[in-house]
Amino acid sequence: AVNANEMNGAGNLMDFLDEPFPDVGTYEDFHTIDWLREKSRDTDRHRKITSKSKESIWELIKSLLDAWSGWVVMLLIGLLSGTLAGVIDLAVDWMTDLKEGVCLSAFWYSHEQCCWTSNETTFDDRDKCPQWQKWAELMTGHAEGAGAYVLNYFLYILWALLFSFLAVSLVRVFAPYACGSGIPEIKTILSGFIIRGYLGKWTLLIKTVTLVLAVSSGLSLGKEGPLVHVACCCGNLFCSLFSKYSKNEGKRREVLSAAAAAGVSVAFGAPIGGVLFSLEEVSYYFPLKTLWRSFFAALVAAFTLRSINPFGNSRLVLFYVEYHTPWYMAELVPFILLGVFGGLWGTLFIRANIAWCRRRKTTQLGKYPVLEVIAVTGITAVLAYPNPYTRRSTSELISELFNDCGALESSQLCDYINNPNMSRPVDDIPDRPAGPGVYTALWQLALALIFKIVITIFTFGMKIPSGLFIPSMAVGAIAGRIVGIAVEQMAYHHHDWIIFKNWCRPGADCVTPGLYAMVGAAACLGGVTRMTVSLVVIMFELTGGLEYIVPLMAAAVTSKWVADAFGKEGIYESHIQLNGYPYLDVRDEFTHRTLATDVMRPRRNDPPLAVLTQDSTTVEDVETLIKDTDYNGFPVVVSRESERLIGFVQRRDLTLAIKNARQKQDGVVSSSVVYFTEDAPQLPASNPQPLKLRRILNLSPFTVTDHTPMETVVDIFRKLGLRQCLVTRSGRLLGIITKKDVLRHMAQMMNQDPESIMFN
Amino acid sequence: AVNANEMNGAGNLMDFLDEPFPDVGTYEDFHTIDWLREKSRDTDRHRKITSKSKESIWELIKSLLDAWSGWVVMLLIGLLSGTLAGVIDLAVDWMTDLKEGVCLSAFWYSHEQCCWTSNETTFDDRDKCPQWQKWAELMTGHAEGAGAYVLNYFLYILWALLFSFLAVSLVRVFAPYACGSGIPEIKTILSGFIIRGYLGKWTLLIKTVTLVLAVSSGLSLGKEGPLVHVACCCGNLFCSLFSKYSKNEGKRREVLSAAAAAGVSVAFGAPIGGVLFSLEEVSYYFPLKTLWRSFFAALVAAFTLRSINPFGNSRLVLFYVEYHTPWYMAELVPFILLGVFGGLWGTLFIRANIAWCRRRKTTQLGKYPVLEVIAVTGITAVLAYPNPYTRRSTSELISELFNDCGALESSQLCDYINNPNMSRPVDDIPDRPAGPGVYTALWQLALALIFKIVITIFTFGMKIPSGLFIPSMAVGAIAGRIVGIAVEQMAYHHHDWIIFKNWCRPGADCVTPGLYAMVGAAACLGGVTRMTVSLVVIMFELTGGLEYIVPLMAAAVTSKWVADAFGKEGIYESHIQLNGYPYLDVRDEFTHRTLATDVMRPRRNDPPLAVLTQDSTTVEDVETLIKDTDYNGFPVVVSRESERLIGFVQRRDLTLAIKNARQKQDGVVSSSVVYFTEDAPQLPASNPQPLKLRRILNLSPFTVTDHTPMETVVDIFRKLGLRQCLVTRSGRLLGIITKKDVLRHMAQMMNQDPESIMFN
Repeated sequence: AVNANEMNGAGNLMDFLDEPFPDVGTYEDFHTIDWLREKSRDTDRHRKITSKSKESIWELIKSLLDAWSGWVVMLLIGLLSGTLAGVIDLAVDWMTDLKEGVCLSAFWYSHEQCCWTSNETTFDDRDKCPQWQKWAELMTGHAEGAGAYVLNYFLYILWALLFSFLAVSLVRVFAPYACGSGIPEIKTILSGFIIRGYLGKWTLLIKTVTLVLAVSSGLSLGKEGPLVHVACCCGNLFCSLFSKYSKNEGKRREVLSAAAAAGVSVAFGAPIGGVLFSLEEVSYYFPLKTLWRSFFAALVAAFTLRSINPFGNSRLVLFYVEYHTPWYMAELVPFILLGVFGGLWGTLFIRANIAWCRRRKTTQLGKYPVLEVIAVTGITAVLAYPNPYTRRSTSELISELFNDCGALESSQLCDYINNPNMSRPVDDIPDRPAGPGVYTALWQLALALIFKIVITIFTFGMKIPSGLFIPSMAVGAIAGRIVGIAVEQMAYHHHDWIIFKNWCRPGADCVTPGLYAMVGAAACLGGVTRMTVSLVVIMFELTGGLEYIVPLMAAAVTSKWVADAFGKEGIYESHIQLNGYPYLDVRDEFTHRTLATDVMRPRRNDPPLAVLTQDSTTVEDVETLIKDTDYNGFPVVVSRESERLIGFVQRRDLTLAIKNARQKQDGVVSSSVVYFTEDAPQLPASNPQPLKLRRILNLSPFTVTDHTPMETVVDIFRKLGLRQCLVTRSGRLLGIITKKDVLRHMAQMMNQDPESIMFN
Repeated sequence: AVNANEMNGAGNLMDFLDEPFPDVGTYEDFHTIDWLREKSRDTDRHRKITSKSKESIWELIKSLLDAWSGWVVMLLIGLLSGTLAGVIDLAVDWMTDLKEGVCLSAFWYSHEQCCWTSNETTFDDRDKCPQWQKWAELMTGHAEGAGAYVLNYFLYILWALLFSFLAVSLVRVFAPYACGSGIPEIKTILSGFIIRGYLGKWTLLIKTVTLVLAVSSGLSLGKEGPLVHVACCCGNLFCSLFSKYSKNEGKRREVLSAAAAAGVSVAFGAPIGGVLFSLEEVSYYFPLKTLWRSFFAALVAAFTLRSINPFGNSRLVLFYVEYHTPWYMAELVPFILLGVFGGLWGTLFIRANIAWCRRRKTTQLGKYPVLEVIAVTGITAVLAYPNPYTRRSTSELISELFNDCGALESSQLCDYINNPNMSRPVDDIPDRPAGPGVYTALWQLALALIFKIVITIFTFGMKIPSGLFIPSMAVGAIAGRIVGIAVEQMAYHHHDWIIFKNWCRPGADCVTPGLYAMVGAAACLGGVTRMTVSLVVIMFELTGGLEYIVPLMAAAVTSKWVADAFGKEGIYESHIQLNGYPYLDVRDEFTHRTLATDVMRPRRNDPPLAVLTQDSTTVEDVETLIKDTDYNGFPVVVSRESERLIGFVQRRDLTLAIKNARQKQDGVVSSSVVYFTEDAPQLPASNPQPLKLRRILNLSPFTVTDHTPMETVVDIFRKLGLRQCLVTRSGRLLGIITKKDVLRHMAQMMNQDPESIMFN
């Protein structure tokens, strides 16, 4: 066994871990992990458990528990994130309504719950049930009139300011990482970066609480992105229960990928969409095993949420709709136009938001986050209250916009002029002329659209939890509904136009404005995030019908094409770039004709590469090297003359090993020679005790030749998740390329004309 | 430009391609492709087009066309595979019914189409419409009686034999690759293997025709797997229209992955399930771009199929069902039992089928494929006719088993004893006691189950197109329906048992036997193929309801766990192994502790590695080396003494280059020295002209050190799609590892005790 051990670099690292200093093999904060090394460590652990399992029944049980721990973690994540999502939904419902009034029978009831048991039969009457009182009514006794309006208005603003102040203060004081949507950071973490505390317990607690406050305050933000962050925090929490996951950064990321799927699953009630979102948008390394586990976690989470039943309709989904008419080929034209709108909105939003966030970072503005939040909340509340479409919560708005106008619908948007002779079944109402309510609604919606577009740009990126899905969908849904009503009225009034002749006879129900709202929502969300498949699947799970896949797909693809024409990055990638995270995007295609030799360090005029020799460096030399440089590791060569590569040693491991040896190993002094060879030569007794460090040497460092095209190098970094790669020419070590070098080079190439670089 | 060119190995290959001999960079039949090289070639091509596009408007248009060609190919694939699937569906319907009778009003109508315009109102009467005549009635005038039965029986067998004889003969004579399901081979091809003609035009044509014949003959096989093959043939066909795809094996495989998705999409009418099937089961390299395109192709295909409307109900899906009752927690127990059954069936089927196929390969049996098909068809037809559940086509059987018994249902399976006092809406029928028809049906179903189980084992693998999905689903659906009826009757007769007390009051509709059939079908399909996510998504798209995801998932996961306990491989992987294809499964985890040095060649007692030197080999030496060895390529070193690696040259390129030089380049003779260096030295005029071959030299061969653990090497081979990898130690070339070495080593490790290998 000793012989086999001696031969295996990665294996030794594990044996070493059992020895006194336990930090070997871990990473420092804000450093990149080495996927191959993590994987190899996990295999070693697995091998150990398997071979031990044959020794006794107890060990066998332990090995079975270990094999099942992945599923247990998934179950726990599903249960906790489903529960949290349910609690958040209930709390948001209650607190959003609290801005307008209170339930007298039980103050912890939301408006809907309060009027649930009311005797009124129609929806409109029930909405005004006596148990629910607006603040003005409660305080002054008058429900109507200018005074009551002003008082309600004032209290609405006051509650909004209170909620957002609480949210931003909690974030500031307890968990600065709890702000934002969290998805850019989670993408970065999943790609193999360490941000300690980002997924910690405090972040989980504070993000959950402040998310409720932020959404309730009426700001133009959603809870979907932050829910993904909350689910990932749950994942991280449960990882710490099992050493399999807590001690291996690679395995931990598999769990986090699944947790992200569970997060989207509960955010929309779309388990399959959640898995695809995690696959398409968030995850970096997504083996099939993770696919199955993600699916399991997403299902458990959705099931838990359904058991809590926060929407009171035992539906999983956020916006359940049912349409009764098919769509027609000719409608693809407005759908594609909505796609173009979505793409343009995406481009505008990303550019404006990034410009504003950059300004926040570089100017005085960033120093007063609390004031900023208060100011934006104030403006939002003042402008939102007068318009009924912005006063209510954004998800209610979207829900109404998606809805088809049934016969019993009493909302303003369904104020059509009915034909008194009509005697059709209630579900199949022909196209009708719009009544005055619809025209009022159109104006209000147009104003709401402008308001949402502007305010969302300033809201996303503030120091409170803020998701983008709901505001983006709202923008699209408003635009879509407006277009839908326009097409509907055009079809009603111009039956004889050629395009309408074939599919829209008088008395037929040919246009569903709610479908346009849904298509618009998909287009806008697609423009901002650049999702396609997961987006369509989420939308289709939301509505539960395969019928509308083609309109949705047409809008999503158009929106992506339009937005991509102005810039390849979605909002998450843009924020990653803005924050300078070392994220190597799978989707960026590197097509420049540079070679490894152009990127590696040392550059032409740099000092030579810092290397160690296998048998002629002293402890003091090593310590000086560590002190003088800040490299994460050093190549070990046979000798400085031959420059033939032996292996690679991590800075952290080297520091720990020397520290440990100095403390515990007698005779190791500054002049001791460090040996990376298999056997240290027998030295005369007068020489100081040598220090053998072959055990921490990685004997299989990754190498490429200097002629390797950079596109191949980029591919290798991406697919194997490397931290660094050594460059050789005919066996001689020439230099090193780190992940950061690759990223820097890619950024440099993207901003320059490829021609000018190719031949310089 | 020359300088940059000189430095770039991969780039030169492309320039070289423009020169006289066009085969450089292609692969021979039954060889593995090099993914990195294909990718790098595509980037070069792309770069060229981009830089040219700035020269003129025509070039700009060409570059835009090139960028859009991917979507065009997807559109074409979707259209063609959708059309083919529709035609196949129609033809199968007609020919299946032809075995029993003929439509007098128009002989090309199937039974259903024939009776479509009939005046009879109930479904049962319409089934016996006068236009449709059974053979006996047509020939003798008697529709009833023993004589008619025997005559019908005889003609049924005759038609079946005729169809299967035609099918097997066509396959034998015109396209031997058209047999089987094709999925194992497609998996292998997608993983980067060349099988010329497997996706050719002849295969497409013959597979389409013989698929119709094989399915119509009544054999226990389905059309789903072969439809994937057909769609991939379409993909390959359209690749040849664009040099971007036809000349690059890597890009071609991206198209094929999407085509596979389109195939499943039309097989089941499940576009999302198709994409996930391609991702989970078939594809090897599946970048996000392919995900989007696959989705597009799958949608177009599904849409085309819907326009053709072969089932006459404008539904996309094969088995549309609607259930009216939710499921209860306690039902998870029978669902999980069905999962166990599915797992056991999967194990049994795979073991028995592989054993039978091995016997076919190794014994005399394999020499008489036509006879075998005839014999199996004969036995199937003889046994199938008397039982009404096996006489009809398998998909009709599944459809009936999935169905919930409505009030108007007249089938034997719905022969319940009705309560005369019942006055409920038609859709909500309470549980009722089973009538005699149900008990008869149960016996017939039990016999059908045994028959299907046995005959499918012998059918799959014969020399005709044969899919596995439908027979597997049939086995599961029969078992599920039997269990479902049993649970239902138990619940009806024992309302007072504790388990039924809570959810099944008298008069309630608590058990839906059709749902059990669906869960059973999912379990059996999962046991055979080991799909999970895509399986659940397909089943859920088939039925159109999210409600039943949990039962399906529970059954699919149980079935996978049970089957995995007996052997990790699904039926496709088993057939890949049986045929010895070089397929490196993404799912096999390699956990053994061997090193690169244990696997590389040359082994300890082998002759040294065949290498070329950079400046001291003559043309004759090279030709001898090529003649004496059959390696696919040779490493080039500085000199035999130093063994420092310079690059790698492909055997095929070398052969072509020398042949070309001998023909076209004056003065190149056997004694000419081959130079791989940048500059050939100036030789005296008396020496023969040197041959400079740096252009075909790959200057960035992939290397690992001899200490690299094999798990890392396996990972690298998988993720980067390598063909070979060179092994070095401190810069010296030691040996080479090819994909086949890796596979051989993995097979060896799997069959032996890991402990015994680790330390030998």
